[in-house]
Amino acid sequence: MSRALYQLAGLDDHRFSPFSWRARMALAHKGLEVELRDVKFCDRAPLEPSGQERVPVLVDGETWVADSWAIAEYLDATYPDAPSLLGNDETRASIRFVNSWADAIFHAGIFGQIALDIFNHTCAEDREFFRTTREARAGMPLEDFQALRESKLEAFRYSLMPVRLTVKRQPYLGGEAPNYADYIVFGGFQWMRCASPWKALAEDDPINPWFKRVSALFDGLGANASGY
Amino acid sequence: MSRALYQLAGLDDHRFSPFSWRARMALAHKGLEVELRDVKFCDRAPLEPSGQERVPVLVDGETWVADSWAIAEYLDATYPDAPSLLGNDETRASIRFVNSWADAIFHAGIFGQIALDIFNHTCAEDREFFRTTREARAGMPLEDFQALRESKLEAFRYSLMPVRLTVKRQPYLGGEAPNYADYIVFGGFQWMRCASPWKALAEDDPINPWFKRVSALFDGLGANASGY
Repeated sequence: MSRALYQLAGLDDHRFSPFSWRARMALAHKGLEVELRDVKFCDRAPLEPSGQERVPVLVDGETWVADSWAIAEYLDATYPDAPSLLGNDETRASIRFVNSWADAIFHAGIFGQIALDIFNHTCAEDREFFRTTREARAGMPLEDFQALRESKLEAFRYSLMPVRLTVKRQPYLGGEAPNYADYIVFGGFQWMRCASPWKALAEDDPINPWFKRVSALFDGLGANASGY
Repeated sequence: MSRALYQLAGLDDHRFSPFSWRARMALAHKGLEVELRDVKFCDRAPLEPSGQERVPVLVDGETWVADSWAIAEYLDATYPDAPSLLGNDETRASIRFVNSWADAIFHAGIFGQIALDIFNHTCAEDREFFRTTREARAGMPLEDFQALRESKLEAFRYSLMPVRLTVKRQPYLGGEAPNYADYIVFGGFQWMRCASPWKALAEDDPINPWFKRVSALFDGLGANASGY
């Protein structure tokens, strides 16, 4: 059976999309091989059969699944004998809180730190689209927006307290072993690592050893990706 | 066997401590009767046997347990046949993220909204202590600090997105039924309701019906408490 993941293209081999990383880590956690297919913002034709415009999209045999959370649920439902991503109903309910935090708070904070760096790592054909849509969001040129990052750095670091306090108490967000909560948050930090040389975390931040642990999983799937 | 919970005293019958509320809801979830004993900031002698200075402290027969998280873990371990608060190890690991978010982010946001109102609901003997310690934290008189709350309201509301997005998808943070994650976050909103007439949430905020649902649990334990 063929299996492919449509992920966001990037400059050279920089694959930085946090949502695509959630899906890649989820597939690896399940022990599932997958062919990666790049999609550009300016050419979403490959996604048409999914009825969705945004990556990641998984095509598993004849089944199309869009949206990273839906992909995780689909993988748990379809491959119940492989290690679980979301655990039981109650665990899944709590991981949704982590997912909501990442989508609304964490990603907005990252964008405030590296918006221009992301632009610089999009592929050439996507740059006009990226600049137009992201400058509308930022309310100013990406250059000006990123110039503010140092003034926001302390608040950004503080915003990571839910992650920091948790990984000070346990090796993974999932507890003794990683689960989808780890991949959600990993996706954000990997986005930063793959799209920017900016070091947003202090060197002694307890998040660093956790990120290193998750990066090393699955033969270094995260660690081996091109980045900084 | 005797069982008592030491909770923070307040003006008249306003019992607003968010951590005490976590423990009260946890005990009710377990179906355990408990005698409530008020403790003032200025007289912590009753807590001495626990070796801790902060409420809530549970004394269950001969056993003293301090700290709301430790109380939840103790209750699950000691009363395994009663409904679980923290679920299995994996669920507990995820709820720790919610706990960390509430402690570091949510409570700081609430303090920015109602610091002076809390002062006004502490009992008379505690006011000097409260003012001195909290003004050191705020960096200014409580009156001036609370006067800034409208300027912070939009950011405070946005900070609640992890809760909002989650309860839009499921009736409780715990999923189909409430668990300790709900009581953690309930504690914060109950703190606001019991100590302040300030309406920090928009009327159509999806958090409101969730708060109402949790307030109604256990014969309206939360709803019946004195507040606004």
